[in-house]
Amino acid sequence: MAKVLPKRSEDYSLWYNELVKKADLAENSAVRGCMIIKPYGFSIWEKMQRELDDMFKETGHQNAYFPLFIPKSYLSKEADHVEGFAKECAVVTHYRLKNDENGKGIVVDPDAKLEEELIVRPTSETIIWNTYRNWVQSYRDLPLLVNQWANVVRWEMRTRLFLRTAEFLWQEGHTAHATKQEAIKETEQMINVYADFAEEFMALPVIKGLKSESERFAGALETYCIEGLMQDGKALQAGTSHFLGQNFAKAFDVKFATKEGKQEYVWGTSWGVSTRLMGALVMAHSDDEGLVLPPRLAPIQVVIVPIYKTEEDQQKIAEVAEKLKKSLKLKRISVKFDDRDTHKPGFKFAEWELKGVPLRIAIGPRDLENGTVELARRDTKEKQTVNIEGIESVIEDTLELIQQNIYKKAKDYRTANTYKVDTYEEFKTQLEKTGGFISAHWDGTAETEEKIKEETKATIRCIPLDAKEETGKCIYSGKPSNKRVLFAKAY
Amino acid sequence: MAKVLPKRSEDYSLWYNELVKKADLAENSAVRGCMIIKPYGFSIWEKMQRELDDMFKETGHQNAYFPLFIPKSYLSKEADHVEGFAKECAVVTHYRLKNDENGKGIVVDPDAKLEEELIVRPTSETIIWNTYRNWVQSYRDLPLLVNQWANVVRWEMRTRLFLRTAEFLWQEGHTAHATKQEAIKETEQMINVYADFAEEFMALPVIKGLKSESERFAGALETYCIEGLMQDGKALQAGTSHFLGQNFAKAFDVKFATKEGKQEYVWGTSWGVSTRLMGALVMAHSDDEGLVLPPRLAPIQVVIVPIYKTEEDQQKIAEVAEKLKKSLKLKRISVKFDDRDTHKPGFKFAEWELKGVPLRIAIGPRDLENGTVELARRDTKEKQTVNIEGIESVIEDTLELIQQNIYKKAKDYRTANTYKVDTYEEFKTQLEKTGGFISAHWDGTAETEEKIKEETKATIRCIPLDAKEETGKCIYSGKPSNKRVLFAKAY
Ligand SMILES: [Zn+2]
Ligand SMILES: [Zn+2]
Repeated sequence: MAKVLPKRSEDYSLWYNELVKKADLAENSAVRGCMIIKPYGFSIWEKMQRELDDMFKETGHQNAYFPLFIPKSYLSKEADHVEGFAKECAVVTHYRLKNDENGKGIVVDPDAKLEEELIVRPTSETIIWNTYRNWVQSYRDLPLLVNQWANVVRWEMRTRLFLRTAEFLWQEGHTAHATKQEAIKETEQMINVYADFAEEFMALPVIKGLKSESERFAGALETYCIEGLMQDGKALQAGTSHFLGQNFAKAFDVKFATKEGKQEYVWGTSWGVSTRLMGALVMAHSDDEGLVLPPRLAPIQVVIVPIYKTEEDQQKIAEVAEKLKKSLKLKRISVKFDDRDTHKPGFKFAEWELKGVPLRIAIGPRDLENGTVELARRDTKEKQTVNIEGIESVIEDTLELIQQNIYKKAKDYRTANTYKVDTYEEFKTQLEKTGGFISAHWDGTAETEEKIKEETKATIRCIPLDAKEETGKCIYSGKPSNKRVLFAKAY
Repeated sequence: MAKVLPKRSEDYSLWYNELVKKADLAENSAVRGCMIIKPYGFSIWEKMQRELDDMFKETGHQNAYFPLFIPKSYLSKEADHVEGFAKECAVVTHYRLKNDENGKGIVVDPDAKLEEELIVRPTSETIIWNTYRNWVQSYRDLPLLVNQWANVVRWEMRTRLFLRTAEFLWQEGHTAHATKQEAIKETEQMINVYADFAEEFMALPVIKGLKSESERFAGALETYCIEGLMQDGKALQAGTSHFLGQNFAKAFDVKFATKEGKQEYVWGTSWGVSTRLMGALVMAHSDDEGLVLPPRLAPIQVVIVPIYKTEEDQQKIAEVAEKLKKSLKLKRISVKFDDRDTHKPGFKFAEWELKGVPLRIAIGPRDLENGTVELARRDTKEKQTVNIEGIESVIEDTLELIQQNIYKKAKDYRTANTYKVDTYEEFKTQLEKTGGFISAHWDGTAETEEKIKEETKATIRCIPLDAKEETGKCIYSGKPSNKRVLFAKAY
């Protein structure tokens, strides 16, 4: 297996695309903008799903399923929402095909035109709030804490595997509450869940913050987000949680009777993460040799590669490997014994490196004699010879060390690439020279935000939740500002 | 909570519809033919998914994800397939909406017409085999053992919750093999997996068999199926597994190099079960009071209802209940303690009966004194007073008994409702009088099958895999036949 990836330093974008394809994560399909998530990539996504789903259930949510299609008129019911989502979307206009009368294969049957077009959901607020109207009568029916795992479609013109695709997989939580306070608490709880997941499982440090008004979800009063920093100095939004106020309740007439018998509109939230997380995972940690996966999300945590010349050695090594595999399985460590006789050890080393397996064990004839194995870490590339006796706990501990090390490395990178600037000149220079997060004062207006975006391509990633009060002047307008916000170029 | 369901004996169809809605399993959406799967219903589906997914993985399969959309031309590539699927389907013709120039809301943008229409997948053979062409070069790449959990759309005109909906959820396995024998073995393995799942988890006895040629999957050489019998004497196809031969490999040019270096077409299978299983689960076991769920698929296996008059008793009972809940959780038994003070015990009893919770525990003041609880079985409605000391293993055993009893009841029902007939008169009389499975000789021709269907609405459900060789005469044509097949009216 020859070197297969371009270097990050030469062409980060090409490196990413090639890595996603060559590590068997995903590929483009014959349908423009729609990707195929390959088994290896999907098994990482499944691990993410399982962990997130557990976290949602621990916080009281239940899964449900709502229709793929949304009647066109629904999109118009919430005034801001329609501006945000009724644009690039897949429109179903007919419900039948027929054989062409001139023998030219199959054609759309013009007689089977829908009275009202259906939109393939770009997000499900409208169809869900239309349903909630019937689910909520009194305060006893609240809160509704519902999540859905689903595919959604947004007809993006420029697509990239995982990061921006016409169809993607996600989860969307949609909750309804009796009070404003409770809905805000839910919105904040879920951004915290996402941040915990990103940091603890993806090993991705994230900044929690609020979006500026112009970056808010269409129909939300407030959008919370988590933002990570990729290795090329660009930011990536990894999850959002929206406080919807009573906007959708009013648009779909969802009221409830309070304890006192008054009719009031319900308060809502929605929140989601998507297969975009796969892109973040790849870009945050991987290197020029391939993927670097955090052990908690790696489908294969340990790979065992046998090195032998004689059949006798092959057999003896296989015995040792199978025994080790079993004892690791008892510790819930997932192990692959790569006993293919069609490939050489060097090829296998490169392949598992490309696929980001956190720990590699090599066993050769000398190891057999000495009762040892060679243990190699994917993250640091360190190798050590370890006694096979008691190796299980060494492996367990090393996997934990790798998880922590990957996180620390990403966090150190972020710290080193977060810059405070106080003038627009500094801002532009820093952005050009290093990228990264740029912390600066902003006057709070959409006009300034828009101008900065036009002139530099940097956007306000968020107003960090932990931003300190600090008097300052907007780098662009010089007007007064009381806290810094984070700018960056972003995916 | 008053009696809410019509009796099965009065209107089985209405009973089913009302039960599905009132037990919070599913409801119709605003989009014709598309259902909403409610949280309680979805939690049952999730249990099914988890068990099936484990079984697929144990048999070596991996999950992946393929696009929702299929280019129209793909459907035409396999000659039989197009006849079966290119009919009632959702057709995406445009990819943008815009504001109406006359201010009439949003309209489809005529400039955003797709060059080739996209079909919302009714099943994914075509897009997947188009992908497999690039995944398979040599025998080393085989077998491909891939499964996908997805939504699919078939524009059915007459829909019923779970049983026939325009959009439904399912899994579709798609495998590729080097030899015919291996593909047939896979097809058979998967129908056995489905049968095991139906019998062991759904407590639904099923007949394994082959479909007649006219009932085969469009594009398959052989379709295996499992068929269950519902309480109204109608059959329900609960899963299918198709041997595709080289049909799709030829249609999409999927070849591989054999060990000897020859180019050969790959052999294929596909297999699936869907949310239809939810309908089968409801119809096979439930009664006039509501759902009867097999414990292995019940989201709540035990419900505890407190009965008290004083606050002191309420508190003491809560302590006992919480303790019991904890000790049952250690045994992985899911328990709900229904401590709502907004509803009376009688209301709660009826509600959990409606929702099919297998075991109900009631705790009252006298139980506190005696160290007992009242244990009520949902399936037999038997009640007994049981010491709370050591009750965990009583509950564990009783859940297992319920699982077995529900299965036995369904199997006895099927046995009692399977009839051997030897003349067409008998056939028609039996079908009219009792319904059920009717075992009869058939001459093997599509003409006879079609005539019988037209005249009686009964179809050949399958040629059972365990059918014995037996000389006989076709009930319709009198021509010779060497085995009996199973007829029934079906969902
Ligand atoms: Zn942000
Ligand atoms: Zn059958």
